[in-house]
Amino acid sequence: MFDHRLAQKASDNLKKIRAKKPLIHNITNYVVMNYTANALLACGASPVMAHAAEEVEEMVSLAGALVLNIGTLTPQWVDAMLRAGKKANALKIPIVLDPVGSGATQLRTDSAKRLTRELSIQVVRGNASEVLSLTSKEARTRGVDSIHSVEEAEEAAVTLARSLKTTLAITGKVDLITDGERIYKVHNGHEMMGMVTGTGCTATVMIAAFLAVDPDPVEAATTGLAYFGLAGEKAASHTKTPGTYQISLLDALFSIDEEELRKGAKIEVVK
Amino acid sequence: MFDHRLAQKASDNLKKIRAKKPLIHNITNYVVMNYTANALLACGASPVMAHAAEEVEEMVSLAGALVLNIGTLTPQWVDAMLRAGKKANALKIPIVLDPVGSGATQLRTDSAKRLTRELSIQVVRGNASEVLSLTSKEARTRGVDSIHSVEEAEEAAVTLARSLKTTLAITGKVDLITDGERIYKVHNGHEMMGMVTGTGCTATVMIAAFLAVDPDPVEAATTGLAYFGLAGEKAASHTKTPGTYQISLLDALFSIDEEELRKGAKIEVVK
Amino acid sequence: MFDHRLAQKASDNLKKIRAKKPLIHNITNYVVMNYTANALLACGASPVMAHAAEEVEEMVSLAGALVLNIGTLTPQWVDAMLRAGKKANALKIPIVLDPVGSGATQLRTDSAKRLTRELSIQVVRGNASEVLSLTSKEARTRGVDSIHSVEEAEEAAVTLARSLKTTLAITGKVDLITDGERIYKVHNGHEMMGMVTGTGCTATVMIAAFLAVDPDPVEAATTGLAYFGLAGEKAASHTKTPGTYQISLLDALFSIDEEELRKGAKIEVVK
Repeated sequence: MFDHRLAQKASDNLKKIRAKKPLIHNITNYVVMNYTANALLACGASPVMAHAAEEVEEMVSLAGALVLNIGTLTPQWVDAMLRAGKKANALKIPIVLDPVGSGATQLRTDSAKRLTRELSIQVVRGNASEVLSLTSKEARTRGVDSIHSVEEAEEAAVTLARSLKTTLAITGKVDLITDGERIYKVHNGHEMMGMVTGTGCTATVMIAAFLAVDPDPVEAATTGLAYFGLAGEKAASHTKTPGTYQISLLDALFSIDEEELRKGAKIEVVK
Repeated sequence: MFDHRLAQKASDNLKKIRAKKPLIHNITNYVVMNYTANALLACGASPVMAHAAEEVEEMVSLAGALVLNIGTLTPQWVDAMLRAGKKANALKIPIVLDPVGSGATQLRTDSAKRLTRELSIQVVRGNASEVLSLTSKEARTRGVDSIHSVEEAEEAAVTLARSLKTTLAITGKVDLITDGERIYKVHNGHEMMGMVTGTGCTATVMIAAFLAVDPDPVEAATTGLAYFGLAGEKAASHTKTPGTYQISLLDALFSIDEEELRKGAKIEVVK
Repeated sequence: MFDHRLAQKASDNLKKIRAKKPLIHNITNYVVMNYTANALLACGASPVMAHAAEEVEEMVSLAGALVLNIGTLTPQWVDAMLRAGKKANALKIPIVLDPVGSGATQLRTDSAKRLTRELSIQVVRGNASEVLSLTSKEARTRGVDSIHSVEEAEEAAVTLARSLKTTLAITGKVDLITDGERIYKVHNGHEMMGMVTGTGCTATVMIAAFLAVDPDPVEAATTGLAYFGLAGEKAASHTKTPGTYQISLLDALFSIDEEELRKGAKIEVVK
């Protein structure tokens, strides 16, 4: 059932991250900054957080990937994201967008849509509601309807990925990754991950690290999520309480070696 | 000495939180955002942090309670707090205020007083100096005098609760909760809690979670503090060093079950 | 090789911090706020984070030392730093500057230089690139050249300390502390410290705590770094994974006693 080539690629990508230590520029929310910085360090990448309009273009120019996360957004921060994103586009530096809470407030939905409209974004990572909130009004009704079954959610995601010309990574019990053509699923992960704040945001930065070494957005997102999900499983084998789990997850990101990832990655190629 | 009905209610409230998973909207300080979000998850609630003036009204409309915490305030954040608070008042969503550092700077004292004046706040949680700094100038002199003995601090709190028409929760070695009529004390807690930054702020968010399921502010604050204090005791039975303690406290919030809380709550009804 | 007097002084300074519990006012970056607050508590000091222009002067007046850290700076935050710093200078309250990322963007380099130009700063703590980026243009060329060997980095630091009239604390495998006359080196520390985000920033706040009890900037910085480095060694004797290490480092800051520091401090007096 699981794909050997992609498991090998996950392993190869992790090896590259640890060799190259790519700089990941984050414009992200206050809640997770410390945790995602530590997660990036643990996987082998090098994090920097910088949001001032005056410096984001210069900072992103040094980076291997850019993370835009609207978790505690203001209009000023969205402006900085656009500025950094345009520079990243000009320099062909990949961007991952995490539309935290898109669909919950107008500001979040509008900001997420604006970012996808004005930037070329390589991967959008969110839960099903967040990602499907990015559909246009007409499509949205269908999107909401389509969540009734996994098959329909898949269909909505494929349509949306095509219309946004991006790769969507919808994380949940099983992760779905699609660029509108290919459809991959990641079966790694553990329910304890939902007990720690910012694990979604951490999935996003993992994708960024993998994008910094893998030019294929679908495969970068898929292999990054397999690695992160495997770390979630490994941490859950140590503890079932959330404080300790938060720490064990960082330990697992650090201690998973390439062989372990190659053997443990559960990636399904649907199409 | 300890009240059985309130111990049972603490247990019932915890059960309700875990069943309903109320959304708690936090406009809070940068230092504790990650920790209080994780504490809310650990107790069974669902945290969201959002401070943009453009979205706070919409966000609070989805919430079971609102936390206003001035720990790293600016005038702009206080404006957002007022905006969210007025919406919460209109929708009868309960508010907890944490006047961090009120009394230390004019900005903090003025902001805390403004929030209590312009909003209907259900519970104010702070240490004795912070809470008593909310008295008007004349009363304040008496307030400061009255801290000389526990009896006088109690008297000042009762007077202040009446004048502010709110419930005050003064945390310390023993917690004092009063609405100006009833006076309850919580004897749970451990001195290690003072070794971790943001435990006061975490007490505040626990009260918010309990307020989301219990319409009586005095009993919500009291039962929430008993639960949090018991978690503090449980964590201290595992470790006496502050790094590990910070983590054990989250584990304890998660692992305390309803029976354990019913047996462990040490609530005294003074009046 | 290691200096007994300074090892004794490290121990004495730690004792004073634990007795006096000095308030340390931090205007710092979002990523590390929680961690450095907990580190200050663990060592025995009392942290406060406050950045609003309206209150920084009042807050710093209560403090034993001021930390200025540009890790997630904006021009507005730099203005607040200048305001707090001028008040600190007027009141003879010592200042530590952490020029995070100076040299990486123009905003950071300019802001760090402006702070050193407009304020009297007692200690600047950074890595070699950050600190040497503070040289003027002409000197910088030499500074960059001089990093080729330790001897030349030392020479550049001595020259820069004299020109800035401050103490420089350059942290790395071995820490170098100089005011342009004296040169001390600290041989404590562990490579695991580089696996946790914000350990540099934490070194900075430790120096602030030591400055609050020791009026000699060179000796305060040196003894503070010996203490922090020893904590890093102690934590590494417990764990080699970064999540757990982050926590163990706080535990070690708390549990190191004065005798342990006196015996473990590895301070070399070069000149």
